[in-house]
This record gives sequence, C-alpha cells and structure tokens, in this order.
Amino acid sequence: MERFEGVVAGVRERVEPDSDERERLQQVARSLAERTEDAITNLPVEADVVQVGSTARGTWTSGDRDIDLFVRFPPELDRETLESYGLKIGHEVLPDGHEEFAEHPYVKGQFDGFDVDLVPCYRVESATNIQSAVDRTPFHTQYLEARLDDDLAREVLLFKQFLKGIGAYGSDLRTEGFSGYLSELLVLEYGSFRALLGAAADWHPPVRFDPEDHGTEKFSDPLVVIDPTDPERNVAAVLTPENFARVQHYARDLLDNPRESLFFPDSPNPLTPEAVDGRIADRGTAPVAIRFDAPDVVEDQLYPQLQKSLSGIADALSRRGFDVLRADLFADETAVLFFELSVSERPAIERHDGPPVHVRAHAAGFYEKYADDDSYGPFIENDRYVVERRREFTTATRFLESETVFDSALGVHVEQAMREGYEVLSGDEIGVLAAEFGRELARYFDPKP
Amino acid sequence: MERFEGVVAGVRERVEPDSDERERLQQVARSLAERTEDAITNLPVEADVVQVGSTARGTWTSGDRDIDLFVRFPPELDRETLESYGLKIGHEVLPDGHEEFAEHPYVKGQFDGFDVDLVPCYRVESATNIQSAVDRTPFHTQYLEARLDDDLAREVLLFKQFLKGIGAYGSDLRTEGFSGYLSELLVLEYGSFRALLGAAADWHPPVRFDPEDHGTEKFSDPLVVIDPTDPERNVAAVLTPENFARVQHYARDLLDNPRESLFFPDSPNPLTPEAVDGRIADRGTAPVAIRFDAPDVVEDQLYPQLQKSLSGIADALSRRGFDVLRADLFADETAVLFFELSVSERPAIERHDGPPVHVRAHAAGFYEKYADDDSYGPFIENDRYVVERRREFTTATRFLESETVFDSALGVHVEQAMREGYEVLSGDEIGVLAAEFGRELARYFDPKP
Repeated sequence: MERFEGVVAGVRERVEPDSDERERLQQVARSLAERTEDAITNLPVEADVVQVGSTARGTWTSGDRDIDLFVRFPPELDRETLESYGLKIGHEVLPDGHEEFAEHPYVKGQFDGFDVDLVPCYRVESATNIQSAVDRTPFHTQYLEARLDDDLAREVLLFKQFLKGIGAYGSDLRTEGFSGYLSELLVLEYGSFRALLGAAADWHPPVRFDPEDHGTEKFSDPLVVIDPTDPERNVAAVLTPENFARVQHYARDLLDNPRESLFFPDSPNPLTPEAVDGRIADRGTAPVAIRFDAPDVVEDQLYPQLQKSLSGIADALSRRGFDVLRADLFADETAVLFFELSVSERPAIERHDGPPVHVRAHAAGFYEKYADDDSYGPFIENDRYVVERRREFTTATRFLESETVFDSALGVHVEQAMREGYEVLSGDEIGVLAAEFGRELARYFDPKP
Repeated sequence: MERFEGVVAGVRERVEPDSDERERLQQVARSLAERTEDAITNLPVEADVVQVGSTARGTWTSGDRDIDLFVRFPPELDRETLESYGLKIGHEVLPDGHEEFAEHPYVKGQFDGFDVDLVPCYRVESATNIQSAVDRTPFHTQYLEARLDDDLAREVLLFKQFLKGIGAYGSDLRTEGFSGYLSELLVLEYGSFRALLGAAADWHPPVRFDPEDHGTEKFSDPLVVIDPTDPERNVAAVLTPENFARVQHYARDLLDNPRESLFFPDSPNPLTPEAVDGRIADRGTAPVAIRFDAPDVVEDQLYPQLQKSLSGIADALSRRGFDVLRADLFADETAVLFFELSVSERPAIERHDGPPVHVRAHAAGFYEKYADDDSYGPFIENDRYVVERRREFTTATRFLESETVFDSALGVHVEQAMREGYEVLSGDEIGVLAAEFGRELARYFDPKP
C-alpha cells in the first residue's frame, strides 16, 4: 500500500497543474467568456455563456489546453437561427477559427495558445428537456461542480491518467472507452481512485449505479451509470466489453504491482518491413490487406465505418473458408483493413449439402441441377443429397480483388472510397504497410490486454 | 409402363432359376436333410432339421448356391452341449467343412457344388422365447412360406435384384441395407415390386409397418418394420438413412427411366495411380491416408471398427483445423483410412479463448499461464482473455504420424493393427493405393447416389 501511495504521488506530480498553469487557464477562460458576452450583445437575443468540461471543473491534467465554452440560447429559438448566431459569435471570438460539425456546426480555434470550442446550445430547464445532445453538457458541469471538491478532483486526475495509460479514456467512437463525465461520476461514487480500482477489480457485469436513484430504463451494457441529470440515459452506453475488461485487468495489475509506467506507457517502436515479415514467418499465417484512401470524414464517422467494413469482410472471408485468425484496421492518410488468415487457399471444390432425399420435389430439383454439370455427385450422405461443386474463389486474394467483395457489409464512405480504387496486399507485400503503420503493426504483433 | 414391364421381363429372365436349376437345388437340399437326420440319430437327443433362407422360400436368384440348414435342439439343452452336438453333426454331414462363428460356432462347407451352412439352434415355442438370435430364423421362414405364393416370390426376386444393383442388399454390417427377410416383408406389404417402388419413391421417414399389429416398442429408425414373429424387434434396425434414401432415389429413377442396367450395373474400371493423381489435381484437395494390415476378424466386426476409426480420426483432424472434405475406408489385404482434406496445414499458432476477465480467479490463472510463455497475448476480445498459442500440429501428416492419433476413438482391432505398424501416405503417394483399391478409388472419385 505504501508502494501504491508512492506511485500515486509520482503520478500526481506529473498530472496536476501547478498554480501558475491553473491561473493562466482561468485568465484565458475569463477573457474568452468576456469576448463571448460582448459578441452576444450585438445579437437581438438573450444568451449566456458557460464554461464546461474538465477545465471548468478542475479535473484537467497538466498540459491540457482545451477550453470549452457553451453559448446558451432561449429554447424558443429555431435551430437554423441558433446555428447562424452560434457561428457568428464563434467567428467573432475566434477570428482564426474554423467550423466543425457535431450535433450542430460550431467554431473551433486557437486563443492565447489554448484550443477553444465555442458551441451553441439551448438553455433548457432540465437535462430531460434537451433539444439537442449538447444541451445536456452544462447540466453535467453543474452537477459535478456542486459535488467534486478539490480532493475528489485530484482523485479524478489519477483515474483519468490511468485510463489514458491503458488506452480506455474517451467516449469517442474510435476508443469507445470512459468519458470524462463517466470517470468523474465513478470517482464520486467510490470516493477515491484507490477504492474505485479495488471495486473495479472485482466488478461482475452488469454493474449498475444510479446516483440519483431515478433510472427508468433497462440497459444491457456491462456498465450502467444512470445519468444524474437524465434518468433515461446510460452514461457508459458507449463503453465496450473490451474496455470494461481492460479496466478490470489493469486495476488488478496496478494493485498487485503498482508502477508509474502503467500511467505513462511508452509507445512501441514502429516495426520495419523486415520485422513485419519476421513476425508473420514466426506465426506462419497468411496476411491479406485492403488499402485505400481514407474517407474524408470525422473520426467518429470513420472508425465505426471501418469497423463495420472490417467485420463485414472478415465474415465474407470466413464464409468462403478463409479462416480469419485476427483482423485489425489502421487509418491515417490511407485506411487499411488487415486480415491475418489461418487459411488463404481452398480446394477447387467445396461440399454443398442438398435437401433430404425424402423431400421429393425439392430433392429432385437439386439432383437435376447438379447431375450433369462439372460437380462431383450428387451422392447421398445420411438422408441428404450432397454435391462437391466448384468453388467461386479458391484464394482469399482473388475474392478480395473481385467485385463480390462489395457484397460484404461495408460502411457507406468506405464503400465509396473502395469503389474509387483499392489495392490488395498479401504475403511479403504486407511489409510495405510498416511505412505508414509501423507503430500500429508493432501493437498488432505484440497484443496486450 | 410398357417400358417398365419390358425391363422387368428382361430382369426376370436373368434372375429366375429355371425348373432344372430349381429341381437340382431341391434334390441337394433333400439329400442334405437326410444326411443330417441320420447324423442326429447317433446322438442321445431329439432334434429336427429345417431348411431356412431364400432357397427354402423360393426367393433365391439364379446362380445362388447357398443352402442353410438349421438343426433344432430342445430348449433345455445347455449351450455347450448344443454347440458340441451341432459341430459333430456338421462335420459328419460336411466332411470337408470348417467351423465359423456367428452366435454359436457352426460348420460351413461344400456339398455337391453348393455352399452349405449347418447351424444348431433351439426349438423354442415362439420367436419371443428365443435363447439365441439364430433361433428366430426358422420362424421367419415359416411365416413367409405361409404367405408368399409363387407370384409374390417372383416379385421378391425383382426387388432383391434391384437392391443388389444399387448396393443396398444385405443386412451385414458392411452394407447396412435390406435383409432378404425385410425385402420379402415389404413385397408382401405392397403386393408387387412396382407398387413397392411407387410407394418408396414417396416415403416420408419415419415409415412404419406392423404386419401383425402387435408392436410394443418405439424405434427412431427411418424405416420400422415390426417383426411379425417378434413384437419387440424392428426388422429394419440395421438399415442406414443412406440406404433408405438410396432406395428412394433409385425407385424414382427406375420409374422415370426404366432400364435393366440399374439391376446389373457394371463395376467401374479401376483407376490407375496416374488417374488418381489427376482426380486429386482437378479437385485441388490434400489427401492423406493411413494404411495397415487388415485385422483378421470377420467382416461384421471389421467394417464397424473401420467405420468407427474413420470417424474418430476424421473428428480428431477437424478439431485440429484439418478440415475433412470427405473420407472413406477400403479393406482387403490391407485396410486404408482415407481422408480428403480441404486444409492440410495450419499456422504455427492458434487462437485459444480464455475465460471472461470478470471471473477473477479463473481469469488470473489463465493470464499467468500464458503471460510469459511464447504465446502471443493474452489480450482482450469482447469480455475474455484470448491468446494465440503454439499449435501442437501444423500439418495433418505430422498429427497422423504421432502417438496422439491413438487418442482418437478407434476400433479395438484397428488400434491393435495400427500399433503393429501403419504408414501415412499423402500428396502424390496416394496413387499407390490404386494397386490394391483402384476400383474403390474409381467409386470414390465418381460418387453416385
């Protein structure tokens, strides 16, 4: 336990902003709020500004430079006007900013060295009356501000850094992990980082919390935390079983063997093409990959689409007898769907079971269909006709290169991108992926919990 | 229908014994019966002789040279005495005969150019009181003799020849088809070969007959014919779903396209080793075979044991990722278990799913077991640990050559024979099997219903 405290002290030193950094952020936030209020006065509407997110709640880690300001408009305002007012204010406050799109368009930009999001929303009475998903955010900040004292905020920092270290921080659709809000609610629930770890090590899903004891819905997620500001919402809805299990694994690991490196892991060294070849030779597998230009959409669209496409093509490969040992996706300038196969070739023929012979009309149709073609059979096994017919694809590569690959379940932008052109890599061509994805391949070939 | 009748007339011509042949057989049977009665008089016991089987019932086809005589002893006689009396009579009647073993030992020998079985049994009151399976046989003959007139017997000949032609005649454990008794009961049921074919073409299993309406048991076989002499017995118990379906298929075929060749098919020409290689190349498969000296046991023991071993090893191959497209067994001097594989090689590693991470003690044990060995992982997928561990066998051949093959379910005599030595053939070594099993391989590579 002493060792645990020692590790925690070391982590605190690295993640807690000192008073200078804190003061500096407060100044910039105040100045931004003032500029925003000034911009509001030029509009024929009443609105106010609230700072939200971890920098508003004192749960940000040293080096974070994100300031989130929400401008709250009256709920009667139509959405189009809200959006135009929001962008007008955004561009006034952040003259060098650019527009991004979440639920509405908003302006993102730099100010005094900080990354600022300026987001319009509706000032609704309660989180259950929201008109847009972002309307909920100010309620979260309000709820936590009232409950997280400085000590708890310091515990939150530890948990967040732990989640970052193990790769489970963030409710974006690439990570599908723990949001800041969820992390804070969990620390609030258990009272300390240490207590939360001890509990998580023993969690037995489904794990359910309802801080305000007002939940009305059933959820099938492994972790259910009913939003204190909205009885119908599971704050952990995005969390995957993997990340749930990951937190359990590393909670046990950290308690057994406390160490700072879990909070600040080194990135793996990128693999060279030769090293990739070496791993494949050691594993004796047959890798194939599809590469195409990454669709130009935000990550929250890109990753779910890549994931869907990866599963869709993996299923299509498996159905054709090309057994997938493991698959992964990589995205940067290009996007790669990577399949490591146990079986990449199949015979010229495949077994195809027909109907039971006693189902006369159906059976006769099957028999006639295959009796005179170049199949082997039909013959009888058990009570059925069986035929050994020609396979459409005898290698995985030929399937991936064919038009038939588009019959797989693909994300819409992925399909578009692939239709514009893709290449299929296999065998020792796989090494070339190391140029762009050496680090990802290093992680792939040394998989950790 | 006219064409059907023409075909039937042609078949009759070939299978019906003429009066000379019939007379000759009767003479020999009478003379054998007399010799047997004489032999009985030398014994201190009362016994009688009955002729059984198709030659007794006039349902034998031209060229059959089997005469079966049963000597019936009083049921009080102990089994040992019955056996010694039976053999004594047998050797007296058939001086050149030799002993064989079914339920009891009995004598088999030649007499005047006929193959004679001389079998001792008990003269019980009814077939339900039998002390030995062979005691039932005289009751079958008695039942059918009273019901099969000459016209029906001629129909039986057609059905039997049809079954021989399609390979479904015989209740031995190699064929697992229709016994003579079963064939005769079915003709009795439907009244003619033609009516039986028409019905069989439309059978929908389970098909159940109970000629004496006295059945007491439930059976799960596709065809259930309650023995008219024994309410607890299904005469078709040995019939496989394959042979049931086969009769359906060829009944439809013969009615659609009547032809004599179905009754008298040509044996296929044996394949040469080169032809075997050619078939394999066309199919693109990976054949492997185990060959050993055929165990010296009767066919009714040999074939079930080979079948069990074939399934046992096929399962073991499949479990290790060596997908079996089709398998078959051949036996003569040597016995061969033949597996045509779709996949004969696997990577150096295999995926192995561990427990869910939340099952703490079990999960921790799994993690520790694999964390520091040469496996990849453990990592997390869904809620479980997964590891990619080294495979024990990366080729089917190496598995078959290993001691581990004996962990498969094997027939006891097959296991003994294999322990004395076996060879594993694969790839282009398979062609050598054509020397002994060219015809079997021809059937294998041109499979028919």
